Amino acid sequence: MSAKDKPWGGRFKEATDKQVELFTASLHYDRRLYRYDIEGSIAHAKMLVFQGILTPQEGRIIVRGLKDVRRDIEEGRFSFSPEDEDIHMAIEKALIRKTGDVGGKLHTGRSRNDQVALDVRMYVREEIKAAAEALGALKSSLAALAGAEKDTIVPGYTHLQKAQPVLLGHYFLAYWEMFDRDAERLRDCLRRVNRMPLGAAALAGTSVPIDRAFVAKLLRFPSVTENSMDTVSDRDYIAEVIFDLSLVMMHMSRLCEDMILWSTDEFKYLEISDAFTTGSSIMPQKKNPDVAELIRGKTGRVYGDLMAILTLLKGLPMTYNRDLQEDKEPLFDAIDTTKASLYVLADMLKSVTFYRERMKKEAASGFSTATDVAEYLVGLGVPFREAHGIVGGLVSYCIKNGKTLFDLTLEEYRSFYPGFGEDIYDVITVEHSVNARKSAGGTAAANVAKRLSDIEGT
Amino acid sequence: MSAKDKPWGGRFKEATDKQVELFTASLHYDRRLYRYDIEGSIAHAKMLVFQGILTPQEGRIIVRGLKDVRRDIEEGRFSFSPEDEDIHMAIEKALIRKTGDVGGKLHTGRSRNDQVALDVRMYVREEIKAAAEALGALKSSLAALAGAEKDTIVPGYTHLQKAQPVLLGHYFLAYWEMFDRDAERLRDCLRRVNRMPLGAAALAGTSVPIDRAFVAKLLRFPSVTENSMDTVSDRDYIAEVIFDLSLVMMHMSRLCEDMILWSTDEFKYLEISDAFTTGSSIMPQKKNPDVAELIRGKTGRVYGDLMAILTLLKGLPMTYNRDLQEDKEPLFDAIDTTKASLYVLADMLKSVTFYRERMKKEAASGFSTATDVAEYLVGLGVPFREAHGIVGGLVSYCIKNGKTLFDLTLEEYRSFYPGFGEDIYDVITVEHSVNARKSAGGTAAANVAKRLSDIEGT
Amino acid sequence: MSAKDKPWGGRFKEATDKQVELFTASLHYDRRLYRYDIEGSIAHAKMLVFQGILTPQEGRIIVRGLKDVRRDIEEGRFSFSPEDEDIHMAIEKALIRKTGDVGGKLHTGRSRNDQVALDVRMYVREEIKAAAEALGALKSSLAALAGAEKDTIVPGYTHLQKAQPVLLGHYFLAYWEMFDRDAERLRDCLRRVNRMPLGAAALAGTSVPIDRAFVAKLLRFPSVTENSMDTVSDRDYIAEVIFDLSLVMMHMSRLCEDMILWSTDEFKYLEISDAFTTGSSIMPQKKNPDVAELIRGKTGRVYGDLMAILTLLKGLPMTYNRDLQEDKEPLFDAIDTTKASLYVLADMLKSVTFYRERMKKEAASGFSTATDVAEYLVGLGVPFREAHGIVGGLVSYCIKNGKTLFDLTLEEYRSFYPGFGEDIYDVITVEHSVNARKSAGGTAAANVAKRLSDIEGT
Amino acid sequence: MSAKDKPWGGRFKEATDKQVELFTASLHYDRRLYRYDIEGSIAHAKMLVFQGILTPQEGRIIVRGLKDVRRDIEEGRFSFSPEDEDIHMAIEKALIRKTGDVGGKLHTGRSRNDQVALDVRMYVREEIKAAAEALGALKSSLAALAGAEKDTIVPGYTHLQKAQPVLLGHYFLAYWEMFDRDAERLRDCLRRVNRMPLGAAALAGTSVPIDRAFVAKLLRFPSVTENSMDTVSDRDYIAEVIFDLSLVMMHMSRLCEDMILWSTDEFKYLEISDAFTTGSSIMPQKKNPDVAELIRGKTGRVYGDLMAILTLLKGLPMTYNRDLQEDKEPLFDAIDTTKASLYVLADMLKSVTFYRERMKKEAASGFSTATDVAEYLVGLGVPFREAHGIVGGLVSYCIKNGKTLFDLTLEEYRSFYPGFGEDIYDVITVEHSVNARKSAGGTAAANVAKRLSDIEGT
Repeated sequence: MSAKDKPWGGRFKEATDKQVELFTASLHYDRRLYRYDIEGSIAHAKMLVFQGILTPQEGRIIVRGLKDVRRDIEEGRFSFSPEDEDIHMAIEKALIRKTGDVGGKLHTGRSRNDQVALDVRMYVREEIKAAAEALGALKSSLAALAGAEKDTIVPGYTHLQKAQPVLLGHYFLAYWEMFDRDAERLRDCLRRVNRMPLGAAALAGTSVPIDRAFVAKLLRFPSVTENSMDTVSDRDYIAEVIFDLSLVMMHMSRLCEDMILWSTDEFKYLEISDAFTTGSSIMPQKKNPDVAELIRGKTGRVYGDLMAILTLLKGLPMTYNRDLQEDKEPLFDAIDTTKASLYVLADMLKSVTFYRERMKKEAASGFSTATDVAEYLVGLGVPFREAHGIVGGLVSYCIKNGKTLFDLTLEEYRSFYPGFGEDIYDVITVEHSVNARKSAGGTAAANVAKRLSDIEGT
Repeated sequence: MSAKDKPWGGRFKEATDKQVELFTASLHYDRRLYRYDIEGSIAHAKMLVFQGILTPQEGRIIVRGLKDVRRDIEEGRFSFSPEDEDIHMAIEKALIRKTGDVGGKLHTGRSRNDQVALDVRMYVREEIKAAAEALGALKSSLAALAGAEKDTIVPGYTHLQKAQPVLLGHYFLAYWEMFDRDAERLRDCLRRVNRMPLGAAALAGTSVPIDRAFVAKLLRFPSVTENSMDTVSDRDYIAEVIFDLSLVMMHMSRLCEDMILWSTDEFKYLEISDAFTTGSSIMPQKKNPDVAELIRGKTGRVYGDLMAILTLLKGLPMTYNRDLQEDKEPLFDAIDTTKASLYVLADMLKSVTFYRERMKKEAASGFSTATDVAEYLVGLGVPFREAHGIVGGLVSYCIKNGKTLFDLTLEEYRSFYPGFGEDIYDVITVEHSVNARKSAGGTAAANVAKRLSDIEGT
Repeated sequence: MSAKDKPWGGRFKEATDKQVELFTASLHYDRRLYRYDIEGSIAHAKMLVFQGILTPQEGRIIVRGLKDVRRDIEEGRFSFSPEDEDIHMAIEKALIRKTGDVGGKLHTGRSRNDQVALDVRMYVREEIKAAAEALGALKSSLAALAGAEKDTIVPGYTHLQKAQPVLLGHYFLAYWEMFDRDAERLRDCLRRVNRMPLGAAALAGTSVPIDRAFVAKLLRFPSVTENSMDTVSDRDYIAEVIFDLSLVMMHMSRLCEDMILWSTDEFKYLEISDAFTTGSSIMPQKKNPDVAELIRGKTGRVYGDLMAILTLLKGLPMTYNRDLQEDKEPLFDAIDTTKASLYVLADMLKSVTFYRERMKKEAASGFSTATDVAEYLVGLGVPFREAHGIVGGLVSYCIKNGKTLFDLTLEEYRSFYPGFGEDIYDVITVEHSVNARKSAGGTAAANVAKRLSDIEGT
Repeated sequence: MSAKDKPWGGRFKEATDKQVELFTASLHYDRRLYRYDIEGSIAHAKMLVFQGILTPQEGRIIVRGLKDVRRDIEEGRFSFSPEDEDIHMAIEKALIRKTGDVGGKLHTGRSRNDQVALDVRMYVREEIKAAAEALGALKSSLAALAGAEKDTIVPGYTHLQKAQPVLLGHYFLAYWEMFDRDAERLRDCLRRVNRMPLGAAALAGTSVPIDRAFVAKLLRFPSVTENSMDTVSDRDYIAEVIFDLSLVMMHMSRLCEDMILWSTDEFKYLEISDAFTTGSSIMPQKKNPDVAELIRGKTGRVYGDLMAILTLLKGLPMTYNRDLQEDKEPLFDAIDTTKASLYVLADMLKSVTFYRERMKKEAASGFSTATDVAEYLVGLGVPFREAHGIVGGLVSYCIKNGKTLFDLTLEEYRSFYPGFGEDIYDVITVEHSVNARKSAGGTAAANVAKRLSDIEGT
């Protein structure tokens, strides 16, 4: 194809180098924006008619043409050619083939710079909603697990050392909170995405008497962007959505890490169903938590996408620079990766079998209720640091004598602090321990139930 | 110091290795949190009194002791020792030295895990406000420049090629919008920071009958965190604030890039004052835009801080792990770097001298109003793509004949399209070009004035 | 497909979830490894024969079968099915279809873990060579330019301020050195890649009496890896090659930045040919350096690939974890991106037209030879710091009086330092300046010529 | 301080803004380069004498002055002032204070640009050696452990599922290989660091008749850099060394992950001594592997340093830009962090107690020798894939009937494959399993012993 035939080719003499055509083309990935491009163009055309820039007749021809192109694409009859560079050109050229001169009027009062911005904002807006839905699916799985396991006691860990018994329901609700914050963050981002950019034209606005608010209304944008130069160079919302997804992946990587650990032979707290694990080509006895591992690994991929967009934006002069074309692949990859991971993890969690007996047994081991003893002493008026010291001595004594807290006689207890009563044997049970932690947000069953009912109410 | 003497040292036999003490200590950087630690402890103590866990007398002793420690620190009389590990221990030990046993009661119903979370949240809350103020300073400089240069015409660039003339005021307002979005993003983040974590204790809440809402109220937190396990392991807000600051740095890197370019001998649009540039040790004629370059370079530093926190959070099992101690240095660095950069850039911009004549002359060169000719033709009913082709031909003709658009006779114009009128000579002036772009957000003077007055109104 | 039919499916009861199949599949990207997989399998089969583990007859059947599969793939007759998970399975299953039971013997003494490692190492080895060739193409372009422009004088910049005149040839050779170091770095990496991993089996080696050295020899590996556990979990070479490519991209981003700046209307040192630039859809006069901008932008992409692999490796327990499957896409992307960028940049540089007159004129402006005056004074015995001060005064005087160094009379010179002679007027020419810098590696023409001849000799 | 008093201040009129002075100063971190700066200056002075540019008398005064400054610094008598900007200025000004005019001659034929490059290269050269030593310490610990645990059998994991028994010595040697590659990588980097940059001057070389080779020889550099422009803008070696250290940290993060897992109550394979763990302020029973966790967390920090340097280099125009000043803090941080982590980990490993009984017991559980049964069948002529299927059936049968491989009667074995012999009961022991893996690099004791003796030989 000669540069002469390109929409911008008026003055160009040499044919565009084939290699360059391939190097600069984005059609192979930006074609997924076709729906937004066409919807945006239809709105633009309607506005041009409303403003008297196109005749109603022209408007109808263009809109019909655009819809035809859309149908062609959706029915697989559209032939994408790398020569078309990008989806915007591909569609406009197809429109002109269908409608002749009239199609050539569509681009009035806009530029590829603001058109791209519009398409991507519409895409991100839709995908934020899709990601929120996927987050919703995972949150539902977590809430369902929390409900089902609201009485299951499991060791709570710090430093991967058993610390205090907690309810498994409480544990899953902790992840629920993380993914809920993620959804909140995406909603905040959506406000910034949801500003209509069309009309910024190349960078300075246009002298064509367009009505940006009209287009915004048709496309359900609550407002328009404020400054044309900013509009064509702004990719903040892309970086922001990728960052938000990075945190989603990070949270999943933590949950997967736990699931991987808990499904080891050593922890054996749960078993992931066969559908979400695989065997080994040489070790028939294994059941590998591949899905959880892959999600953990894919975290790196989304972090990489974030670094890609941040690096490309660094030090770019105003306004649009072609570097910005490289914004799309990391964006698409981050969205695709995160959504797929959310859904597969939501389903995987549903398939997990918990070994409740073992969890509870482990929750009771390792002096996990030592803190309860300390708080018991505090209740008797012992200063915290002193109570802590006493319990430290008790535990030392137990370890030295191969005993648990249950094995100690009341005399032994009283040799460390005379105030110990019979009730200490109740205090050191995991059930008591869990339910004593009634402070707001603590692991007591009543708290878990309340939070679950709040969540269901939302 | 023997491990026996450490607050957690009850059962430990060996002395902590000196090297380990240094390796694990955070006191040299977390001491800057002392104000928050003490304010939080005072609120905690008051709540313990209110709940009847401490006597009013004990509460008074503790509060007075904490205030004494604060005064000691602020007056330089506090001796920080690496053996104290972190600021929380250093303060508690000093308190106990001052108050004896009573001080040992302060830690009742809390743990270092939730205490650290509280201190850092209070710090981030304060620093978000400080960063917002620094953003405000830069936005003020930009608005002031936009006001002062509201009639200055400068070339607008895309691909670093002159594209269309714009008002310099419009250009500065584009950056204003970026930093305004940054401030908006920080406000959103603040909502998530502003949740009171104390009471999560080690990870599971506490059996001590504390009142978290009381503490929240004293410390001006609108709400408390919902889940104790999430609370002690959540560092999302740290990642989020560093990300928000990464975008601030990115925006500054772009503005600095422009300032560096514009102060070259080749562009010569402006001169940065001597106070913000330096000379060279061997080339006396130079005036290097060091401040702008350093800010651009420091962008990498804040990106690095972001990557540090994201990497450390990846794949961490629940709940608290010591890895999390590494959250503070990137956080502090990102905040310090960004604030300092904002203020120095705000001041640098005030010192700039603009070469308005040169800017305008350059804005008029290079067929920069060719788009205006195309839009003129569109106004005459020529389809956009055709108008574009005609102007392409005109420009080609000019280049071939060494002419500008002003040099062409009306006949020459009409040889390309018969509808050209005398008014074309007005259309191709930069003043007309700029003011014709009246579409919302476009560069027309009226738009710039309106936006400025909106901004002043806020 | 039922899990029963999968090679590892012996004990599995549930059908693999369809969604999981898609989520875990790598066939859509790892199919590009087919050549290495087959070549590796052929070598493995030959070794099994040599060791008497397979009969020669079995070996022949397997080798013929593998070659048939290869032909099928290369001639487009191979049908890839997502159920096959990855390229290794796809090929083995095809082999078994072609050869029956005999094909089932191929996997003797190896595992997918070491097989993947082999394939990727062979791929990286080949691609390092391909990247070196691409680097060679760019280095050739640079050397050719250096030769062609060995007498062209251009301003040398520091801080983007004109500093001292240099030869354009010297400038291009500076980039030559960078890319030469990149090639050196890749060669170092190659040594670490070039170790044969097959035989590590799943992680512990095998009891089958294989001969790893035999396989290494067939596949042209100078050595075998030393430890089976390390072998199946090692992805260092992937991180290393991506890092090496990150530096290649970084160097290109700098060269592209220069080319973009130099092709602005303001610098106007060069023009990139139409084939490597594009026009604008709304501004017919522009010539956008898209290729250079895209390369600069793609730097972010390769940095992102690096961050992806580093993140995924962080904190992985030994040995193989499924996370490692995520190593391939960043690797492939980094290699494809860098090679394509190198070739297109090599070609772009060949197409550049230099505006030598303008370069030289600019090189002479701005007191660019002030340092020469200082060094002239040093030659007269003036201490360096004093000489520097004198020249500072001279320049100040010139600026105040609107003069250049050429405009000053000898009296004026002597009023600053009495020792100035007539020869000062020669010293301040750019030709003298450039050629005076004869220190090794300096910009003098003789140095440039010498380096060029060294390079050609290599 | 007025700009007039600054070495580059000849023409400057305004006082440098105080805030700017602080913002641009690097003295608070680059002062650690003082030794290299002085050693480099001494070599430069000697060369100037050798070349007849300074008199021997001047040379002696300067060298003596520099040594005096060094002594002042080392004995704490040097007063660093932020006004001095950087260590180079601070030293030169102190020299001039000590020696008067003569000191002002030292800077002849060099610039701060090449001087900084020299100092940093000398620093990196020294620190690469120091890092290699620290790597050596860790490798020694690993080799010592491998020797001590050469008969200890531990489960080998893939996907964190028990896979096959391995020797603990083999496991530690796997890490030895990783750190050995790290050392190899640093050695490669050293070759690129070890090129002498002085003489590049500001960017173009110098007309002063210096002898770069002479300086290189004095400073023990095997060669000089080839191109002056490249020399002053090259920071590749900084990025490379930080990358190499990133891999070191990554390897440590993996080892620490294992140590953390293995010291859980659930794995209980080992106990880290008290000196390298800490207790909890509220849970007296815990023994937290803080050191291992911190190292894992610090990985993020070094990755962040890498991202910082890569970001800052992206898109920088030639040659020196002030952004480059930001190279030092990430460099210093990466080096300090990695060295400290290596030493503390080397010591921590020495302190570990292994629970060998438990390891062996666990190694024998979970059908860990199923692969051995498959390879046994292969030895009997069963095709690999078929053998695999048979063993899959056996394991299924065992699980269903609650049996281990040892519990099966020979009849049961033979019902799956008639060829099983009595020797199968030997094959399924972990000792047999481990020692059967004799393939080069496999876990057999003979292999471990051989590798250990190779290592000791080096």
